[in-house]
Amino acid sequence: MLVMGIDPGLSRCGYGVIRQKGRATEAVAAGIIRTDKDDPIPRRLHELQTELADLMGEYRPDAVAIEQVLFQVNVRTAMGVGQASGVAMAAGVGAGAEVFEYSPTQIKKAITGWGGADKEQMGKMVQTLLGLPQPLKPADASDAVAVALCHLAHAPTRSSIQAAV
Amino acid sequence: MLVMGIDPGLSRCGYGVIRQKGRATEAVAAGIIRTDKDDPIPRRLHELQTELADLMGEYRPDAVAIEQVLFQVNVRTAMGVGQASGVAMAAGVGAGAEVFEYSPTQIKKAITGWGGADKEQMGKMVQTLLGLPQPLKPADASDAVAVALCHLAHAPTRSSIQAAV
Repeated sequence: MLVMGIDPGLSRCGYGVIRQKGRATEAVAAGIIRTDKDDPIPRRLHELQTELADLMGEYRPDAVAIEQVLFQVNVRTAMGVGQASGVAMAAGVGAGAEVFEYSPTQIKKAITGWGGADKEQMGKMVQTLLGLPQPLKPADASDAVAVALCHLAHAPTRSSIQAAV
Repeated sequence: MLVMGIDPGLSRCGYGVIRQKGRATEAVAAGIIRTDKDDPIPRRLHELQTELADLMGEYRPDAVAIEQVLFQVNVRTAMGVGQASGVAMAAGVGAGAEVFEYSPTQIKKAITGWGGADKEQMGKMVQTLLGLPQPLKPADASDAVAVALCHLAHAPTRSSIQAAV
C-alpha cells in the first residue's frame, strides 16, 4: 500500500510518500510545495492543486492522509491552511485515492506514543520508523511523512491482511 | 463582461452568473450546488470542485467573485466554508478567470449602500438591480448574485471602458 501524507499549508505544503510491504515501511518521496506569498491567494491555491495532482498522478497513492487543521492563535493563517487542506482533499479524491484526516494529537500519539510530543521527537521517530540515516528535512516534509505513518497505524486490519499475503 | 459570484459553502454553495452590457446588467444563471452531509468531506469537496468547474466551463466567466469567509461563532462550520472557498478559488483560476474576494460588509455596502443590511434588504436589492419580477430564490443563489454585483461595483474602470465601446 502506498500512502501520501500531507501537512497542508499555503506557503509551504509538506508531502511524504511511503510504501508498506509486509511489515516493512519504506520512504518513497518527500518534499514541500511552496507558493509565493506575493501572489494572489486564488493563484496560489490553484498552483497547490496542480502540484498535488501532478504528484498524485506520479505516485498513485492508495490513500492520502491529511493533517487536520485546528484553529490556532493566528486566525488568518488558519484560514489559508484550511483552504489548502480543502484543495488537497479534493485533489486526493480526484486522483482516485481514499482520503483520511488525522488530528495533530492522533499523529503524535501514533508516531511517539504521546500526544504532546515536540517537533524534534517527532522528527527522530519518523527517521527511526523509516530507517533513515538522518532526520528527514525540511520539517514540513517529515511532518507529512508522520501523517502517512499515522494512517498506516490506524489501518491495522488492512495492513495485517497485506502482511499475510 | 461575465461575472460568476460564489457564496461558498459545503452543504449549500450558491452561484450566480451576471452579464454586464454597457450600463445594463442582466441575470444569466443562478442556483446552488448541494453536497450530501452524510458523505465524507473530501468527497464533498471534490464534488463541489467538479460542479464548479463544469459551471465555469459552461459560462466561461471573465471574473469569479467569492464571498470572503469570516470566522463566526461556529468554528466547525467556518472551516468547511473555508475549505469550500479554497476549492472555488482554485477552480476559478483553473477556468482561466480572474478571481476576487469580497467581505460580507463590502458586498452589503455595494448592493444596499449600508454594511449592516439584512438578508431581506439584500434580496430586494438584487431583485431591483437585475430587474427581476420577484426575489431570486433560494437565498444562497441571490447572495451569490450579490457577490457578482459587488464585483461590478468595484470594477468601475473596466465597466466604464466597456460601456464606452
